[in-house]
Amino acid sequence: MPSYKAPVDEVLFLFNDVFKIERHANLPGFAEASPDVVSAILAESARLSETVLLPLNASGDRQGCQRGADCSVTTPDGFRPAYQAYAEGGWVGISGDPAFGGQGLPQALGAVVNEFCTSANMAFTMYPGLTKSAFSALLAHGSEAQKATYVPKLVSGEWLGTMNLTEPQCGTDLGLIRTRAVPQPDGSYAITGQKIFISAGEHDLTPNIIHLVLARVEGAPAGTKGISLFIVPKVLVNEDGSLGARNGVTCGSIENKMGLHANATCVMNYDGAAGWMVGEPNKGLAAMFVMMNEARLGVANQGLALSEVAYQNAAAYAKDRLQGRALSGRAAPERAADPIIVHPDIRRMLMGIRAFNEAARALLMSTALQIDLARHTDKAGAQAAEDRLGLMTPVLKGVLTDLGFENCVEAQQVLGGHGYVAEWGVEQFVRDARIAMIYEGTNGIQALDLVGRKLPKDGGRAYLAYLAEVAEAMAAMGDDERLSVLVQPMKEGLERLGQATMWLMGNAMNKPDNAGAGAADYMHLFGRVALGHMWLLMAKAAVDKERESRAPEGFARTKLALARFYMERMLPETATFLSRISAGADTLMAMPAEAF
Amino acid sequence: MPSYKAPVDEVLFLFNDVFKIERHANLPGFAEASPDVVSAILAESARLSETVLLPLNASGDRQGCQRGADCSVTTPDGFRPAYQAYAEGGWVGISGDPAFGGQGLPQALGAVVNEFCTSANMAFTMYPGLTKSAFSALLAHGSEAQKATYVPKLVSGEWLGTMNLTEPQCGTDLGLIRTRAVPQPDGSYAITGQKIFISAGEHDLTPNIIHLVLARVEGAPAGTKGISLFIVPKVLVNEDGSLGARNGVTCGSIENKMGLHANATCVMNYDGAAGWMVGEPNKGLAAMFVMMNEARLGVANQGLALSEVAYQNAAAYAKDRLQGRALSGRAAPERAADPIIVHPDIRRMLMGIRAFNEAARALLMSTALQIDLARHTDKAGAQAAEDRLGLMTPVLKGVLTDLGFENCVEAQQVLGGHGYVAEWGVEQFVRDARIAMIYEGTNGIQALDLVGRKLPKDGGRAYLAYLAEVAEAMAAMGDDERLSVLVQPMKEGLERLGQATMWLMGNAMNKPDNAGAGAADYMHLFGRVALGHMWLLMAKAAVDKERESRAPEGFARTKLALARFYMERMLPETATFLSRISAGADTLMAMPAEAF
Repeated sequence: MPSYKAPVDEVLFLFNDVFKIERHANLPGFAEASPDVVSAILAESARLSETVLLPLNASGDRQGCQRGADCSVTTPDGFRPAYQAYAEGGWVGISGDPAFGGQGLPQALGAVVNEFCTSANMAFTMYPGLTKSAFSALLAHGSEAQKATYVPKLVSGEWLGTMNLTEPQCGTDLGLIRTRAVPQPDGSYAITGQKIFISAGEHDLTPNIIHLVLARVEGAPAGTKGISLFIVPKVLVNEDGSLGARNGVTCGSIENKMGLHANATCVMNYDGAAGWMVGEPNKGLAAMFVMMNEARLGVANQGLALSEVAYQNAAAYAKDRLQGRALSGRAAPERAADPIIVHPDIRRMLMGIRAFNEAARALLMSTALQIDLARHTDKAGAQAAEDRLGLMTPVLKGVLTDLGFENCVEAQQVLGGHGYVAEWGVEQFVRDARIAMIYEGTNGIQALDLVGRKLPKDGGRAYLAYLAEVAEAMAAMGDDERLSVLVQPMKEGLERLGQATMWLMGNAMNKPDNAGAGAADYMHLFGRVALGHMWLLMAKAAVDKERESRAPEGFARTKLALARFYMERMLPETATFLSRISAGADTLMAMPAEAF
Repeated sequence: MPSYKAPVDEVLFLFNDVFKIERHANLPGFAEASPDVVSAILAESARLSETVLLPLNASGDRQGCQRGADCSVTTPDGFRPAYQAYAEGGWVGISGDPAFGGQGLPQALGAVVNEFCTSANMAFTMYPGLTKSAFSALLAHGSEAQKATYVPKLVSGEWLGTMNLTEPQCGTDLGLIRTRAVPQPDGSYAITGQKIFISAGEHDLTPNIIHLVLARVEGAPAGTKGISLFIVPKVLVNEDGSLGARNGVTCGSIENKMGLHANATCVMNYDGAAGWMVGEPNKGLAAMFVMMNEARLGVANQGLALSEVAYQNAAAYAKDRLQGRALSGRAAPERAADPIIVHPDIRRMLMGIRAFNEAARALLMSTALQIDLARHTDKAGAQAAEDRLGLMTPVLKGVLTDLGFENCVEAQQVLGGHGYVAEWGVEQFVRDARIAMIYEGTNGIQALDLVGRKLPKDGGRAYLAYLAEVAEAMAAMGDDERLSVLVQPMKEGLERLGQATMWLMGNAMNKPDNAGAGAADYMHLFGRVALGHMWLLMAKAAVDKERESRAPEGFARTKLALARFYMERMLPETATFLSRISAGADTLMAMPAEAF
């Protein structure tokens, strides 16, 4: 039975010492997030995760979801009461707009709660997860009536929401969508078509499910320019807000997946279902992107969350498992063998995971803060925040899910044979984490988004501002040798990022295949620098904290060891990424398709 | 439903053009392996794999093995007749000693058959897999009577064999074994204890199962010097070879694993079971190592085999799936979208897998050839072959299983959402491949074996001989620019290997933690060079074949593109490995155990 303890102290260190969120107290939501409130919320979400959600994780995986002959879907035992507790606790709307019943707390805090719950039970947390994106999309693009009808119920968690994009013939390429929307005399549309891979498309947690569906109005232009967004409730909503008749949408089957068994991934059949357009006709993709960007940060968070829980279980095993002797001599001579934590190779694996986790959490928090800043500050500040958010979203989604998965695999390795056995739980983390590299846009698509769109946007404004911020962090290391030792590796990493960017600018304009060939490596090169940047900030904050006698014994030592580990062993990967980017596309395109 | 086609032509290229096995026709077994015989065997094992084993792979995974109340284990539907076909085809003993009923064909050929069967159905192929190691160990260490009683039945596949090493408190550290062996008046021993993680420990495929068991004779020295090896048959064998009474060994439970569901991983309870010692008392570990080294090559083969079948399914998907347009313009303007094989990022993933597969197959074959050479040639030749075998075994096991697994994950990525769904089969390859990094000695142990034992052995004789062979291959590239372009990257890789070796020599003698800290990266650095070496040989052979007008259209072009891909994108990883190795152990050891 795996264990999990929410890393509350780590979060407080980031809030209070690294990002000093009290600086933002002038913003709405932040004033409410006083240190006491934050501590109370973290403690309560830790309790929920550790005592309510974690115990359902392995059993939910074993039992999975069941689809009945009536097309209903039953979630695993315990999920209904757990969801009730989750909704009643106000967790769905923690960062939601107070005008619609949300708590209006910072996104950065919402992201942390999401991490805790996902570590404990990813499949469970997916049910409310997309709902947050759904009400954001409705708030941004819905009519007043739509907002009034749906948003409060979604924010409160009384109903849940979904995103319906994929069809059998179209995943990445949404221009191929075939689902039809036929205008009806009453202003609604009749929606007909099949959607696949719909997370939480059907379940028994709430009396209604609000589907946000991409479809094509008859006669709309071909491709992505002819796609509109529709609200299609599972159960129709009467004028007075009460539930009416069942709508023409049913779950045709649920997928048998590698993991995430407790979250129903549905084939959804729309058979003349009543739908209402959200926003303007043929602008559905733009409206959906509001959902998608938030969802991508949520998915990045899943990479971190599973890496964190995997680390905790691997570290506990390594301290407990007696096997062999330290290479440097017996560490525990009174026992039959030493705990395997004495071995450098075991430490290498564990520190690699941990050095990622702490930096990834910092990067997610700093990016979630941008959402808050983008909504609340002055125009220049909002633009800078939007820039950063746009630039970092694909990096976070791609890099955190790739490395999060690899870390689960590494944690599994620490457990040896026990890592492969269901009873110990780590193999489930691997199976669950795998999907995060695929959904909400495969990581290859994230890389193309970064290289093809976010990087060149506005003449590279977001990128240049980011480089300046990293340079500033490097300059702030000062001459404390414990910090200055981190600067040279970062300098090399940053230089390689610059060289890679230059190479793309010089070689990909005329030959876009060169951008495609280097995109994945560029995304990872960018990500390694971005995580390194977080280590600079954390190392500095840890040393400052110690200097001010506010740090627990050994706190700075651990942070500095992890920072050095990152610089010694993770940042050097940037050399390989740069080599690959500079190799270009020629060799990749040299083989005709039939030779594959 | 996944597909598989055994890569017969690739194998023939390696046999005939790269390694020119006709050079070894003077050796026993090789004379019998005429081109006609080899072709017939490859065709027949391809047929067996594609038509008998592949159709049982997904169904076996779904159904798994069932343990009955009587401690029996039932294999999935279809496994019994498939095993009967396998045994009757003589596949268990294909490389077995003809004096005991084997076919005596080269190990290199046996390894290929093993690859085909494993690609089609890893869980099935594991049942006979360890039997080959078992009869090798008995041939090397058993008494004449033991050989006569057991080896012919194992070679014919009438019975199957197992290895019993692990116990709950001891995996890597076999010195902790507690299973007791009490001498009996008749010369046998009464074996009592519990073994775990025993692959194929119980099943319904054969009327008897021959367990090779490590146990401690009462009063034996502590640690690894007090361990002996025993034969413990599931059913006792009468003097006349017929089956007698049931022995005191039963399957206590079977593990619920991440994958490999169709192969029963058993807890085996020995309760005063009758056992017979193999070889000398307290020398059991040495005897077991004969099994273990062969088993390690078999596990390396699993890494390749799953990477191969994963590649085939991903490549087929990429050529078939229409989604988006080529970055360089429409490739199939008459269709709604282009096949995703047009995208450089998809090609990058596929070529990475394929460049590994072809080089890994070559490296396995060249190493399996060493087993043949070690057994048959003159003393100097045998020593050189043993040296190479010892050096390469940990590299193959560690690197081929790490990369084989990563490749399955990459192949899954090519399929997008379909990669995560059981129906398409690729997710099973990921789950099955994962175990290969763990069993037969975790890859961390392989790395320590390489750095701590194989590398320094005999003053580095094996290593130095290997470097000379790689240098020879580089020199043979000549001035054909298609080949000479491969030399510089290999030179850099080889230099980094030299620098890493020097660093270890200078820093790990006095401080063994430095060896432990760099071992995994060193193993991978070594492996990247070794796979690059294979690409030199294959590229040269392909160009020669084309020059002699024996190559099919496009053959050399594909091989050269893959060779360049390897040099441009895989060999540069050596830079990162060298950086990490040179970082040493200090940072890893800086955190006290409780800080993890």
